[in-house]
Amino acid sequence: MKNVGHLLGYRESIRVLDATIRDGGLVNDFFFTDDFVKKLYQTNIASGVDYMEIGYRASKKVFDESKFGKWKFSSDDDIRSIVGENDTNLKIAIMADIGRHDKEDFDLKSNSPVDCVRVATYIHQLPEAIDMINDAHNKGYETTCNIMAISQTQENDLKCALDMIGQTPVDTIYIVDSFGSIYPEEMARVCELYGEFAEKYHKKLGIHAHNNQQLAFANTIEACGDGVDFLDATYYSMGRGAGNCAMELLLGFLKNPKYKEYPVFKLIEEEMVDLKAKSPAWGYDIPYLMTGLLNQHPRTAIKFIKENRKDYCEYYNDLLN
Amino acid sequence: MKNVGHLLGYRESIRVLDATIRDGGLVNDFFFTDDFVKKLYQTNIASGVDYMEIGYRASKKVFDESKFGKWKFSSDDDIRSIVGENDTNLKIAIMADIGRHDKEDFDLKSNSPVDCVRVATYIHQLPEAIDMINDAHNKGYETTCNIMAISQTQENDLKCALDMIGQTPVDTIYIVDSFGSIYPEEMARVCELYGEFAEKYHKKLGIHAHNNQQLAFANTIEACGDGVDFLDATYYSMGRGAGNCAMELLLGFLKNPKYKEYPVFKLIEEEMVDLKAKSPAWGYDIPYLMTGLLNQHPRTAIKFIKENRKDYCEYYNDLLN
Repeated sequence: MKNVGHLLGYRESIRVLDATIRDGGLVNDFFFTDDFVKKLYQTNIASGVDYMEIGYRASKKVFDESKFGKWKFSSDDDIRSIVGENDTNLKIAIMADIGRHDKEDFDLKSNSPVDCVRVATYIHQLPEAIDMINDAHNKGYETTCNIMAISQTQENDLKCALDMIGQTPVDTIYIVDSFGSIYPEEMARVCELYGEFAEKYHKKLGIHAHNNQQLAFANTIEACGDGVDFLDATYYSMGRGAGNCAMELLLGFLKNPKYKEYPVFKLIEEEMVDLKAKSPAWGYDIPYLMTGLLNQHPRTAIKFIKENRKDYCEYYNDLLN
Repeated sequence: MKNVGHLLGYRESIRVLDATIRDGGLVNDFFFTDDFVKKLYQTNIASGVDYMEIGYRASKKVFDESKFGKWKFSSDDDIRSIVGENDTNLKIAIMADIGRHDKEDFDLKSNSPVDCVRVATYIHQLPEAIDMINDAHNKGYETTCNIMAISQTQENDLKCALDMIGQTPVDTIYIVDSFGSIYPEEMARVCELYGEFAEKYHKKLGIHAHNNQQLAFANTIEACGDGVDFLDATYYSMGRGAGNCAMELLLGFLKNPKYKEYPVFKLIEEEMVDLKAKSPAWGYDIPYLMTGLLNQHPRTAIKFIKENRKDYCEYYNDLLN
């Protein structure tokens, strides 16, 4: 039986991370208003969310600042303009995307409002990711390592990667279903594999799911029941392509009384419905189902939807070719 | 590990039932055009679907014929106008809703294009359901018994019901998550319970899920992995409230080569997108999440959405009161 606390109880070690700005920023190029980000921050505090990932800290040498909102870069100053000294229980996270970050952009933790640096990496970039984990750890940050696109990774390579990451000072290793192609029964096996290394190296585990096959929530609670503690979600599922595990579903499932659904519904009512209507599309749709089913990157589906195409069969044939 | 055939293989005993007209008819009062129903029938044949539930056979003494499309009543003649003598591998099913049906409306199987009578019942109506099962069985039909709203049923009552149903000649007993409130790990336990009685009485099991918490597909494949053979789905999730397990998701998951995705995508492209735009709303939405979470009938959520309300918090408070 799953170790989720018999559904009526709860596990103290569970942590919920709101990735709305970071993953949702991939939808609207990070053009969120300050008012929205502040309201999201307040909502996270009110709803008992444990971490708020406020954006990427991308390198300005790689990306043109004029083409993105500020949360692509998430400077300490910009974060402070939202959270001040963040004298709350909500921890602030940012993401370093390996190959598109710059270590020098990360000040010492003692000078920064950031608590946690999440290092996103493809498996072939692992040495650079480890370098970044070490750097962030040495500067005083909590760290996570998020290996992306594992559904296209050989299991032997993954084991090798987990062994390498286990030997770093990283706090949490994330299971990332980038393409939304993993079924819950596979997720159980992935959790078992990650769990072996987590146990060996005394690491925590996290899960970041995508909703291509309407399984983001199901995979998140599957992983939760399999011992994964860090659960990513976004409000109204906002996130690239099919989006993520919905915060409103996840907090309804979790029974720790610190989690509150009402503030989540309030933000959806007051902000998210409108934001969704005004933003490029996100959320479950047929083209995302197709890329998920075929274990492909969603970029062609995003393009298909942006072009307002409805010729699903033609698109499906293209994917199969 | 789940017994679904290692994801790459398949289990011969699995059957897929298309409930689009029957459950989807609850969205549009069964006003489907004949062209649509014919196309759906052809699509089911092309995609390898095993059963097509073409509607209810409701009593005209209970419902006013002028207020509903013909698939509320699904006469043998109307069915024949779509399927002829149905000389195909696709079986035709209709639903008898206990308390709102009339045994006399069911001719002998030898005179009817119908293969299977599905008997939907609340637990307190069981004697009448058993009477109907016996009647349909004696007339030559394959039968199922679908106990609705089990998430509001005491386990001891459910055991008693399963023992009573087990002693009838029914072929398949259905797990029905009417309110979309069951999580996959609970579904595993429900399957275990139903499985005990299925084994004892040599019955097959089925699953009919609703998508209030985006778990209809997840619960369906969970049940499939737990030994449930009859899987209900609807095209584009069309069905009451949050809708059902999507056929396009389910057939993508199942690996029996007789199941084909392409005709499903074709029907979605040519019919379902348009039908959805023109019909009263169906599909996952926040009010359905709320009733699912709170294990309530979706009728208030359906009303909320019909009224175009967006005051989710007010509605949530009403549900909690």
